Amino acid sequence: MQIDLNSDLGESFGAWSMGNDAAMLEIVSSANVACGFHAGDPAGIMETLQAATARGVAVGAHVSYPDLQGFGRRNMDVASADLFADVIYQISALTGMAATVGATVRYVKPHGALYNTIASDERQARDVITAIRAVNPELALVALAGSPLVGWARDAGLRVIAEAFADRAYTPAGTLVSRREEGAVLHEAAEVAQRMLRLVREGTVQAIDGSTARVEAQSICVHGDSAGAMEMARAVREALERDGVAIRPFA
Amino acid sequence: MQIDLNSDLGESFGAWSMGNDAAMLEIVSSANVACGFHAGDPAGIMETLQAATARGVAVGAHVSYPDLQGFGRRNMDVASADLFADVIYQISALTGMAATVGATVRYVKPHGALYNTIASDERQARDVITAIRAVNPELALVALAGSPLVGWARDAGLRVIAEAFADRAYTPAGTLVSRREEGAVLHEAAEVAQRMLRLVREGTVQAIDGSTARVEAQSICVHGDSAGAMEMARAVREALERDGVAIRPFA
Amino acid sequence: MQIDLNSDLGESFGAWSMGNDAAMLEIVSSANVACGFHAGDPAGIMETLQAATARGVAVGAHVSYPDLQGFGRRNMDVASADLFADVIYQISALTGMAATVGATVRYVKPHGALYNTIASDERQARDVITAIRAVNPELALVALAGSPLVGWARDAGLRVIAEAFADRAYTPAGTLVSRREEGAVLHEAAEVAQRMLRLVREGTVQAIDGSTARVEAQSICVHGDSAGAMEMARAVREALERDGVAIRPFA
Amino acid sequence: MQIDLNSDLGESFGAWSMGNDAAMLEIVSSANVACGFHAGDPAGIMETLQAATARGVAVGAHVSYPDLQGFGRRNMDVASADLFADVIYQISALTGMAATVGATVRYVKPHGALYNTIASDERQARDVITAIRAVNPELALVALAGSPLVGWARDAGLRVIAEAFADRAYTPAGTLVSRREEGAVLHEAAEVAQRMLRLVREGTVQAIDGSTARVEAQSICVHGDSAGAMEMARAVREALERDGVAIRPFA
Repeated sequence: MQIDLNSDLGESFGAWSMGNDAAMLEIVSSANVACGFHAGDPAGIMETLQAATARGVAVGAHVSYPDLQGFGRRNMDVASADLFADVIYQISALTGMAATVGATVRYVKPHGALYNTIASDERQARDVITAIRAVNPELALVALAGSPLVGWARDAGLRVIAEAFADRAYTPAGTLVSRREEGAVLHEAAEVAQRMLRLVREGTVQAIDGSTARVEAQSICVHGDSAGAMEMARAVREALERDGVAIRPFA
Repeated sequence: MQIDLNSDLGESFGAWSMGNDAAMLEIVSSANVACGFHAGDPAGIMETLQAATARGVAVGAHVSYPDLQGFGRRNMDVASADLFADVIYQISALTGMAATVGATVRYVKPHGALYNTIASDERQARDVITAIRAVNPELALVALAGSPLVGWARDAGLRVIAEAFADRAYTPAGTLVSRREEGAVLHEAAEVAQRMLRLVREGTVQAIDGSTARVEAQSICVHGDSAGAMEMARAVREALERDGVAIRPFA
Repeated sequence: MQIDLNSDLGESFGAWSMGNDAAMLEIVSSANVACGFHAGDPAGIMETLQAATARGVAVGAHVSYPDLQGFGRRNMDVASADLFADVIYQISALTGMAATVGATVRYVKPHGALYNTIASDERQARDVITAIRAVNPELALVALAGSPLVGWARDAGLRVIAEAFADRAYTPAGTLVSRREEGAVLHEAAEVAQRMLRLVREGTVQAIDGSTARVEAQSICVHGDSAGAMEMARAVREALERDGVAIRPFA
Repeated sequence: MQIDLNSDLGESFGAWSMGNDAAMLEIVSSANVACGFHAGDPAGIMETLQAATARGVAVGAHVSYPDLQGFGRRNMDVASADLFADVIYQISALTGMAATVGATVRYVKPHGALYNTIASDERQARDVITAIRAVNPELALVALAGSPLVGWARDAGLRVIAEAFADRAYTPAGTLVSRREEGAVLHEAAEVAQRMLRLVREGTVQAIDGSTARVEAQSICVHGDSAGAMEMARAVREALERDGVAIRPFA
């Protein structure tokens, strides 16, 4: 058995640093690398690509709305021609940079507000799908497990990697509990590790109401933006490996 | 006989437009396309790449310091790691976008302050040269005819296209007369056209002191940012063609 | 009788110019001056403030979401703490600049997507209202005539100037016909001028269905971003003056 | 006896944080608050202004070249009209924001590359001086002790606060040893504290060659961007207070 662990990397910007990329590269098998629109300046992106490649970690383009001040977390009503071109620009920039350090961009994972929006907004979803296909139809798309996006992208011919979130509660239908609701975010590293083990082994998690929810995921997203998050990510990896699950890039 | 005519295109940004790209694509054989750092938003860049390709005009990456407010015209003391990565990022973004419309980026022409600085600043010149080679050693570099950069880049193994400026006066040594000096910029379209004809035919121009200056150029830069500039560009093209000089991309 | 005519000015940015501010300053009595978030670099803003003041045109802060690439025309889901502070920052920057040229910022007119959003989105409307009051409760707010914002702002103690759009069709209820509908935008300068005359004289316009719509406006917005728009703006001014209506800042 | 201690605050940006403003506000008497050009988003600036005011710490405008990616640390060849307006814009934005929380901007301290450049570049120095005077001639300018700027600004009628850097070595002439030279930056908190005590008591420091250098400073700059820097800042404050020197804003 095997699974992919992914995390957001390269999110520093100029003099500002974010996260601990070196530590996360010991934990994950896939690195979602910022492309300059929500985070990541070119020199920092380059370092991230080099470090990931040196560790054998796969890299993907973490594309975003253009919003440094909001870190790509604010919904933006971007016209199709712009969203299409913005996504192509970002994937292209990362692809070319990756090539200079011997790396290959294998997938695209939209970031923040764009990720959430295209999970269910068909217009923007199609703009992103079309953009990815225009650059390289072999690129995989990392998408929210159970979201409409998974079907739209597969129907369009893209390889879709459905992802689960280690630190999030699920509804009985296998979708994320909204962050606005109590209990949406999980904090116990050991509990989270056991949940992910079950997810990989059985394709299910215990839903917020105690029932069993089906979640089919080929990748698990972990975070590294705090000491607690990092500890949780490490716990997930260790629990999986202890149980004989290999951590490998899906790509 | 043949020569390349190049001009800066794709320099609109969002709601702001600049120049008349459609008209210039009837005149030039090579389009220096903005990459987003001094001008050019992704959707506008895409349109420029499509229009150039539809007209058979070659495209190059018009890389710049990151300075939208100053339009890349202000010197910036950028560290080598940043300049190196900034240039790779821009070439890469344009290269990937070009591929989606069936175009190929053939060359790099630094813009504005970066162009002027690396003509003689060896540290920054080497950063740009190394960056170009890291992306693709087959890319040509368009550089100021007679500048130290020409030699540095050739020694480093790059193909260099030396360029002359149609609307500028030259010193007896074949270098540009500084804009700060009287008579540095030429305004008579017919006179400029005849000068360029002589440049192509004989490799010389009349210098500002009346002597003959040697200028070896494989490309001539024309502008399209005003009605007068456009008229001059058209006059240069017509004079050359009337005299049997083919306007062809160097690439 | 008198009325205020307002228009958006100072929307150039760096090397990019927009509109013809000099010509518009001959037509309007109030200038909505960009504050750097959707358009306007400091030196350009300064020039606009000086020119407006020299012409006796009142100035207001044309505040926006932070989005140069989208010219402030894209909805952004900005958190209250950010929107509140963004608005204060912009009004403050303009106020201080105005003081250096002997001008006084009299009002705030939100721009583009922010204008449309707060016309009916109470959360963002309250953020903007609170921000204006925090800077200076004497500042007027220019708001869409007939929108919920007018009431919210008046209840909060702000002076509200309701504005009509010269080139837009109205519903029988006195609200704007959506741009997505046929006939929403008017193009005949003479017709528009007559409509505005009636608006000022009687407080009504002919609605899109031929009925009479009540629109109470203390200011009329005209545009200067094209030759046609400018001609229309001039026609409105001339018709009003010919009929004895004085064009005066509401401020 | 008394002295002012100043430090750079409010340098976070959006999701990125920098420094420990809360801790530094316990140490300094003056806060140089970022204005959005090298760091500082409006909501973060607002928080900094509130926190400083709550602690009785004076606030100044930490104006910069427009360069988020380079954190204002890169020299930029900004034209006078732009530099003049950029400085007015930043001071104005901060002044208006400060007023909403009951604070008053008392001084201007240029940041990073702008600080270093205007210490000796007369053209840019005069642009900044003129800008400050245009906004409010009562504003003080914090400038490098011993630099030509001190004289230019005083001659122009500005109140100048000369500042010393706690962690820097001095030449026998009382100017900073260049960072490129060995020993330019000091690391021993206790030693630095004693040096600053002598500076305040006697107006001298031991120069890098062991001689005595005269340095007249009304403010001492300390840093908070690392644990070591913070410890040094605290040591300076404690040594001064233990010796009966009051830490008070110069303003």
